[in-house]
Amino acid sequence: MMKNLPLSKVYQLLEPGPVVLLTTARKGRPNVMTLSWHMMVEFEPPLVACVVTNRDYSFAALRATRECVIAIPAVELARKVVGVGNCSGRDFDKFLAFQLTSLPAESVKAPLVAECFANLECKVIDTRFVNKYCMFVLEVIKAWIDPSQTNPKTIHHHGYGKFVVDGRTIKLKSEKP
Amino acid sequence: MMKNLPLSKVYQLLEPGPVVLLTTARKGRPNVMTLSWHMMVEFEPPLVACVVTNRDYSFAALRATRECVIAIPAVELARKVVGVGNCSGRDFDKFLAFQLTSLPAESVKAPLVAECFANLECKVIDTRFVNKYCMFVLEVIKAWIDPSQTNPKTIHHHGYGKFVVDGRTIKLKSEKP
Repeated sequence: MMKNLPLSKVYQLLEPGPVVLLTTARKGRPNVMTLSWHMMVEFEPPLVACVVTNRDYSFAALRATRECVIAIPAVELARKVVGVGNCSGRDFDKFLAFQLTSLPAESVKAPLVAECFANLECKVIDTRFVNKYCMFVLEVIKAWIDPSQTNPKTIHHHGYGKFVVDGRTIKLKSEKP
Repeated sequence: MMKNLPLSKVYQLLEPGPVVLLTTARKGRPNVMTLSWHMMVEFEPPLVACVVTNRDYSFAALRATRECVIAIPAVELARKVVGVGNCSGRDFDKFLAFQLTSLPAESVKAPLVAECFANLECKVIDTRFVNKYCMFVLEVIKAWIDPSQTNPKTIHHHGYGKFVVDGRTIKLKSEKP
């Protein structure tokens, strides 16, 4: 179902700024949060910085396990993505509550999200910026794509549940990756 | 022409992941580059992390002057944005070459870009991550918006000149900023 994506192409998924889900697993308990504060830091190996605040329940799991999955949802999942972002895994199992399907990852304990068109298995490689900025640096070690979701449209958050959906694509001559 | 935007709203401009321009000025010489690797780090004061590599001509200016402007272009500027991204300020004056209009900023020497619908005056507040990741942490100290550009559509880079343009907007009930 999920197809391997070359790591050199990961930046093409995250650079455009989609809202993503971030999963963790601690003591056998999976959790999922919604995240918009992420950016590419290096092409290959793909390094990603993200801000997960210490108000987020996922913060402790991410810091303790040093593993996560970044899952990228298309617009059809927007309602679930907002739901996930508006409650805490402290209180209940969000996979169950929002009927999201967890799949085992290959190299991390955090689960993939079956409904997402891309899933990136990540290791935390740098926590020096966590105390001051709650910023983690991740290395993507394995990337999966669901080839059955053709031309997925991602969503971009403008605050308080307002999202802009991917529109038309334009192609300009450019040598830049 | 440019209207003051409350700093508390800056995240709504950058969180969705638009391609932006970054201007600097060193020794009286302005320059402009294209940037997609940025993210919000804090709401207010707005903190922004960005990766400007040491292969970019702007790197030395940003590190030396500790000031820049992030200017956000709408899709009508896409061709200029790609042009700016595919050449270096080492070789010529990009404002002149691409007919971009520089305007004086209020609190930094780096110029605003008149054609952009938003301009953010920034100070570099943390360079500890520059050596390892070429990552600068900026504080936005002043934000401008051009009210004549209503409903600007931003562009999102997917690599090698492929851009997705903002499409429709959806609104879901959410308490999250």
